[in-house]
Amino acid sequence: MKKEEVKNWFETLQDNICNELEKADGKAKFHEDIWTREDGGGGRSRVLTDGNVIEKGGVMFSAVSGDLPEKIQKALKLPSCTFFATGVSIVIHPKNPMVPIIHMNVRYFETSTGNNWFGGGIDLTPHYIDQDDAKYFHQKLKETCDKHNDNYYPDFKKWADNYFFIPHRNETRGIGGIFFDRLTENEKFTINDRFNFVKDIGSLFAPIYTYFMDKNKDLAFTKQEKEWQLLRRSRYVEFNLVYDAGTKFGLETNGRIESILVSMPPLAKWEYDFKPEKESKEEKTLNLLKKDIDWLTS
Amino acid sequence: MKKEEVKNWFETLQDNICNELEKADGKAKFHEDIWTREDGGGGRSRVLTDGNVIEKGGVMFSAVSGDLPEKIQKALKLPSCTFFATGVSIVIHPKNPMVPIIHMNVRYFETSTGNNWFGGGIDLTPHYIDQDDAKYFHQKLKETCDKHNDNYYPDFKKWADNYFFIPHRNETRGIGGIFFDRLTENEKFTINDRFNFVKDIGSLFAPIYTYFMDKNKDLAFTKQEKEWQLLRRSRYVEFNLVYDAGTKFGLETNGRIESILVSMPPLAKWEYDFKPEKESKEEKTLNLLKKDIDWLTS
Repeated sequence: MKKEEVKNWFETLQDNICNELEKADGKAKFHEDIWTREDGGGGRSRVLTDGNVIEKGGVMFSAVSGDLPEKIQKALKLPSCTFFATGVSIVIHPKNPMVPIIHMNVRYFETSTGNNWFGGGIDLTPHYIDQDDAKYFHQKLKETCDKHNDNYYPDFKKWADNYFFIPHRNETRGIGGIFFDRLTENEKFTINDRFNFVKDIGSLFAPIYTYFMDKNKDLAFTKQEKEWQLLRRSRYVEFNLVYDAGTKFGLETNGRIESILVSMPPLAKWEYDFKPEKESKEEKTLNLLKKDIDWLTS
Repeated sequence: MKKEEVKNWFETLQDNICNELEKADGKAKFHEDIWTREDGGGGRSRVLTDGNVIEKGGVMFSAVSGDLPEKIQKALKLPSCTFFATGVSIVIHPKNPMVPIIHMNVRYFETSTGNNWFGGGIDLTPHYIDQDDAKYFHQKLKETCDKHNDNYYPDFKKWADNYFFIPHRNETRGIGGIFFDRLTENEKFTINDRFNFVKDIGSLFAPIYTYFMDKNKDLAFTKQEKEWQLLRRSRYVEFNLVYDAGTKFGLETNGRIESILVSMPPLAKWEYDFKPEKESKEEKTLNLLKKDIDWLTS
């Protein structure tokens, strides 16, 4: 497996996902920005705004290379070397609060010192948690993981619970999903096995999200439910700016700021000490923003 | 000077500022939450929302004590000890985009190992920079600083430029102001001199901000100018969540989360790759979000 193969596959994934999302949205088209990185490589940022279903969505591809920045050397405990990194990153904020926010990232990293690995994740942040939708989402992830290894789903689901967590709120970001990093070659898996797994995860994005778009886009919602969506989006902001490793990495290494912060919601609201009414749908959702929920049987 | 004296003075400062802001707002009243800290001390959080002039404003007092958390020991290079910390913290988000956002903090810190110091700052974030307003603001700060020491204004103004800066945007948060920390007793100043300076800064808040409230609250604004306000507020969010030391400190030490994040705007907007029109008021404001501007003569 050559890095060009991964890069090309990710580029095509971006194309396919954008096509599927445009079809499902039925109105707006992605706007593309091609950018280059001073120290090597670049990317294709694609953003869709004001669609029928999507209020703001970014599907970003990048392939960058050069000397490994010192900060990352330290973080990854690597010597001075050159690197190549490519990936696709997605965050979609829908208009209708009954459609969930979704995030996916798949990435490949290699260094001149011979290290290479895949990482990624996909997680769902419903403004209102519907247990059937949650089960559907986790079922699809499990099916795909199980094709590759029985430990993938339980391990990566747990990893997602711990990663997509907001300590200062003591809340998970949403219903989790899977998260994995540094999947490299070992006695059990070739690097191609890892690539095949990442391909399957990447390919799962469009069918999963267009399913939720189609199913929920026309559900009625009240003004109060729209307000709740804006409050939930502010938690998304808090997670991404305070904890998200990808965002931090981007900000600290002088990444293309508009591509990094495309994950920010179009509009978000902070209300001092907001408490949902007892037994309300909002309170029920809050009570489900916990780690270690088994969505498959719940 | 005893710590109770500082604490009492800060408590009264909170009372006075809340009274002055309520008078200038003319409609809404502060809502008070009294809270206690598990490990010692507590605070009085006061929040005003949906006023005539103020959309959301927090004037927070706290006085906490106990064992110095390990993280802070390390950050401050102090041994294991007990501490006492008291302060007043303010952020006001106005309705009218022609009224600036303001922030002030004054604080006192002491340890059982005999360290003690004052810190604080005040900075203004106009959505549209008016050079006369900026001059007025810095002139008032300079006058107050000059009563205590000729170096205070130039030193603390520079400190504010460096502190209230958003590296990933290469923008200052606003027009700066003053920032200072660890003002302790030395050959030049007694701790009482430092306290007197902090008192003067604290006392300056209400007259300065009510001046801007009164002067600008009835200025007309367009829908587009309101949108710009929401975009500027998202920069405020980025600064506070990514860089602000007080916010980080609060999040990392398990502070009262609603009091810490009361600085978040009521509503904020992120627009992908927004660029203001050439020669517009928005572009002119962006061009003034730089360090080292001499507002007194500009």
